Amino acid sequence: MINPGLSVNLTNWHSERLRVRYADTDRMGVVYHANYFIYFEACRSELIRSLWKPYSELEKEGYLLLVIDAGCRYRQAAEYDDILFVYATISKFTDVRIRFEYRIIRDSDQALIVEGYTEHCFADKKGKPCRMPPELKEILTEKYQNDA
Amino acid sequence: MINPGLSVNLTNWHSERLRVRYADTDRMGVVYHANYFIYFEACRSELIRSLWKPYSELEKEGYLLLVIDAGCRYRQAAEYDDILFVYATISKFTDVRIRFEYRIIRDSDQALIVEGYTEHCFADKKGKPCRMPPELKEILTEKYQNDA
Amino acid sequence: MINPGLSVNLTNWHSERLRVRYADTDRMGVVYHANYFIYFEACRSELIRSLWKPYSELEKEGYLLLVIDAGCRYRQAAEYDDILFVYATISKFTDVRIRFEYRIIRDSDQALIVEGYTEHCFADKKGKPCRMPPELKEILTEKYQNDA
Amino acid sequence: MINPGLSVNLTNWHSERLRVRYADTDRMGVVYHANYFIYFEACRSELIRSLWKPYSELEKEGYLLLVIDAGCRYRQAAEYDDILFVYATISKFTDVRIRFEYRIIRDSDQALIVEGYTEHCFADKKGKPCRMPPELKEILTEKYQNDA
Repeated sequence: MINPGLSVNLTNWHSERLRVRYADTDRMGVVYHANYFIYFEACRSELIRSLWKPYSELEKEGYLLLVIDAGCRYRQAAEYDDILFVYATISKFTDVRIRFEYRIIRDSDQALIVEGYTEHCFADKKGKPCRMPPELKEILTEKYQNDA
Repeated sequence: MINPGLSVNLTNWHSERLRVRYADTDRMGVVYHANYFIYFEACRSELIRSLWKPYSELEKEGYLLLVIDAGCRYRQAAEYDDILFVYATISKFTDVRIRFEYRIIRDSDQALIVEGYTEHCFADKKGKPCRMPPELKEILTEKYQNDA
Repeated sequence: MINPGLSVNLTNWHSERLRVRYADTDRMGVVYHANYFIYFEACRSELIRSLWKPYSELEKEGYLLLVIDAGCRYRQAAEYDDILFVYATISKFTDVRIRFEYRIIRDSDQALIVEGYTEHCFADKKGKPCRMPPELKEILTEKYQNDA
Repeated sequence: MINPGLSVNLTNWHSERLRVRYADTDRMGVVYHANYFIYFEACRSELIRSLWKPYSELEKEGYLLLVIDAGCRYRQAAEYDDILFVYATISKFTDVRIRFEYRIIRDSDQALIVEGYTEHCFADKKGKPCRMPPELKEILTEKYQNDA
């Protein structure tokens, strides 16, 4: 356990380090709440790359990964210049959907900043739902204990 | 009912009209998912103004309304130049918390774009949780059927 | 003249009213400097619509209006909840380029907030520079004293 | 010279590597033009840290570095997932002002993406212009050939 507020073990989660920019803050002096979803995206993108290949190549092959649900619980406020570690994992998947879970931890004090999730469905170029590439399904099945 | 996908009656909800900017879109050609939370904020801000007074005055009086939870379900994608109506209401409140619900409807076809919520707690200038101003409590009690 | 700091007459400029969102501010408590370019875009988009037709239709017809240069001078800081009027005009154009000028004025005190410009070139879907639609050229020639 | 389009030698410039996020793009499929100013900020912030100390500490000591002018020329479009190197240097300074210059180069093909600048003045907590900290003046004088 990284810290007392954290009820999961992040050992096998993908992590990305980032620094809070001035642009990310609002006049409360903290990261504007919507921006954590952008941090999630940065980590999700790297998780997909590490599992398989760049998401941009999926798009070239005609797949889109549409966001269908997203949520975030705010535990502590991150501030300008904080170093944050964004953690992401895949907690569920079916042939057409994937659910990612996220945690963000501040480097300086290991504080849990936010917990979140996003759910996605695969779609073709026209936005019509479709199955994920079989190769990806195999990778996910091998790597993740599927709770679906 | 505004449209078949919509399970609530928006008659008493506050609404704000906005137009999707190019800046709001991403390379999928649609509004980037995190930006709907900014649309929610625009409408929440006007709802508070219409109920009582500008949120900026609450801050001058020493209150902060911190986001502690937020979520969104994405039904259809809004596109550049779409006219959207953001609807907001207060679905729950206690002495220290408020929960807002949102719906976004596209003007041209009355499509339900997203459904979302945000939960907030009141805090003082130091970020310590505190009770909401009694005057606001009275207004909310009078106006909203409290489900808390 | 709207105010002493303003060296141009805005009478024939297109104007758009907007309210500063919390998301637009940074921890200095003012609008983050990059966001004024988004305000410019919102007004430029409406100026094009008022002159001719929605920019989205230009894109459907195969034209892109690429930004090739942009600049902004910051005179005073706009704050959360300020009502701003964004003014835009076209100061120059050739067969392939257009230059827009902008001013932003705060409603409450008529303060000049920023002065800016953007320069654009027309391109086809592949990003190759091309001439603007002849119909648009005629409209611009009729409407604007061209300084090109 | 890193590439033919680049008329300056970037050897002594500070550089920061970043990856283009989906959130940074617009429906043209490229980085939205205003976002380059955010990339500039990320690099300016690190340049100040490397020269002296974190900008956040300057703010704690009561100084603000306000943006008074900013501009950018767009040479090529950066796309989702591109690795970019942002370069920054200080090209001018006086007791109260600093001018930063920026270049952004794409890693994959060394293409010059944008060239830009920002000008800043020092101010105290109330926003009143003031002189920069003497220690910073010394550092800048020693490090940079001042063209002011």
